[in-house]
Amino acid sequence: MKKPLILITNDDGITAPGIRKLIQIMNTIGEVVVVAPNSPQSGMGHAITLNSVLYSEKITIDDGPQQEYSISGTPADCVKFAVNEILGRKPDLCVSGINHGTNSSISVIYSGTMSAAVEAGIEGFPGIGFSLLDTSWDADFSQTEAIVRKVTMQVLEQGLPKGVVLNVNIPKGKVKGIKVCRQSKGIWAEEYDKRKSPHGKDYYWLTGYFINQDDGDDTDEVALNSGYASLVPVQFDLTAHQAIENLKKWNL
Amino acid sequence: MKKPLILITNDDGITAPGIRKLIQIMNTIGEVVVVAPNSPQSGMGHAITLNSVLYSEKITIDDGPQQEYSISGTPADCVKFAVNEILGRKPDLCVSGINHGTNSSISVIYSGTMSAAVEAGIEGFPGIGFSLLDTSWDADFSQTEAIVRKVTMQVLEQGLPKGVVLNVNIPKGKVKGIKVCRQSKGIWAEEYDKRKSPHGKDYYWLTGYFINQDDGDDTDEVALNSGYASLVPVQFDLTAHQAIENLKKWNL
Repeated sequence: MKKPLILITNDDGITAPGIRKLIQIMNTIGEVVVVAPNSPQSGMGHAITLNSVLYSEKITIDDGPQQEYSISGTPADCVKFAVNEILGRKPDLCVSGINHGTNSSISVIYSGTMSAAVEAGIEGFPGIGFSLLDTSWDADFSQTEAIVRKVTMQVLEQGLPKGVVLNVNIPKGKVKGIKVCRQSKGIWAEEYDKRKSPHGKDYYWLTGYFINQDDGDDTDEVALNSGYASLVPVQFDLTAHQAIENLKKWNL
Repeated sequence: MKKPLILITNDDGITAPGIRKLIQIMNTIGEVVVVAPNSPQSGMGHAITLNSVLYSEKITIDDGPQQEYSISGTPADCVKFAVNEILGRKPDLCVSGINHGTNSSISVIYSGTMSAAVEAGIEGFPGIGFSLLDTSWDADFSQTEAIVRKVTMQVLEQGLPKGVVLNVNIPKGKVKGIKVCRQSKGIWAEEYDKRKSPHGKDYYWLTGYFINQDDGDDTDEVALNSGYASLVPVQFDLTAHQAIENLKKWNL
């Protein structure tokens, strides 16, 4: 059987330990091409670069068999650029991550990691975002290997439903298994940290904490808090279909 | 009746003709606070600023009654910052735009305009994104006024269903009316424009064209192409609920 062509990207930048681990795992599964941002892109959502130009550089970071390209753009840029300028065809799979930190619940919306997986889905090939619930740079990614491998093999074997990509979050420490879930309803409550620059100007850092607003037991938050990895199918048809009939009654 | 508190933002920057027109209209409806980016943020998707700091400046651009703040961040930043640092409470409505160019079909995902409306929805108040299908800086926004006013008044009177915000696109020229639609299935096909810098380095501009992949007659693309404004209810629970039972059968 021909090895699948696997595109790898992330939002923490091409040198992040999370993507290095993902490359290691994928090298045992397929032919790997890495096209990832040259700088951290956390919180970039589904941004693409329209107002400035893109640079691409072929680089070697370790002695693995993968090919690597470092891009001056966002994760979604990386997927578009890879397909059009590097691979010359759609890959069999795009995996993004492993993110240093959670992308569960509403974080999926802000996530650069997931934007790459979603972009893959839009362009018509399977996409998976992987995240570890540990924001530290030297997080222990070895614990993610079994989960990442299992989900990847299932996607390669079964394919994904049309219009669906996967958001996989992995808790810290021993993982009990994988649960298929829905996105928990929740928000990030902001707290701006106001400071004064050495030049006397006020500036702000965005900080915040997550509030889970969902009491269902079938959510990613519940799975993760019980020691399971969560797998949420994510769609990019954003239409709230259930609201259409009601809105048609409006006086428009 | 107390005037509603209306937050206005956009992604083309606080001086864009589209937002100036929106301010003019909203001044006749409520008490207006403008919190908008100090630079163009098109294609920023749901990006938020995590890796750099934010500046906020109170400014006066015209002699209208509105208060205005110019922010060094994305549209989603503007909504978060407005609620936490400027308004001190949730506004009664957030309107974003009027965007110079379309946000129909899959463009909703890349749209900075819509990210502000979605952020409003996440934070629990009604959000509407308005876009005119004309990318030129001096587009004729006068034609949008009746549509913008009608949709805004309906939202203020009826409220929005939970978890739903509105994506309103307005065609150029005479508008026949407003149609409630679903997001058309489509993609942007990329074409990278490769150039060489004066310093001999290759760089790329992202360009592309839209391909509609949907043959349904209930989509935003069909409405817009027939001369109607399109109104799509947009949700931010991205779970593909219909896929969950199938994925549970996987060998995970």
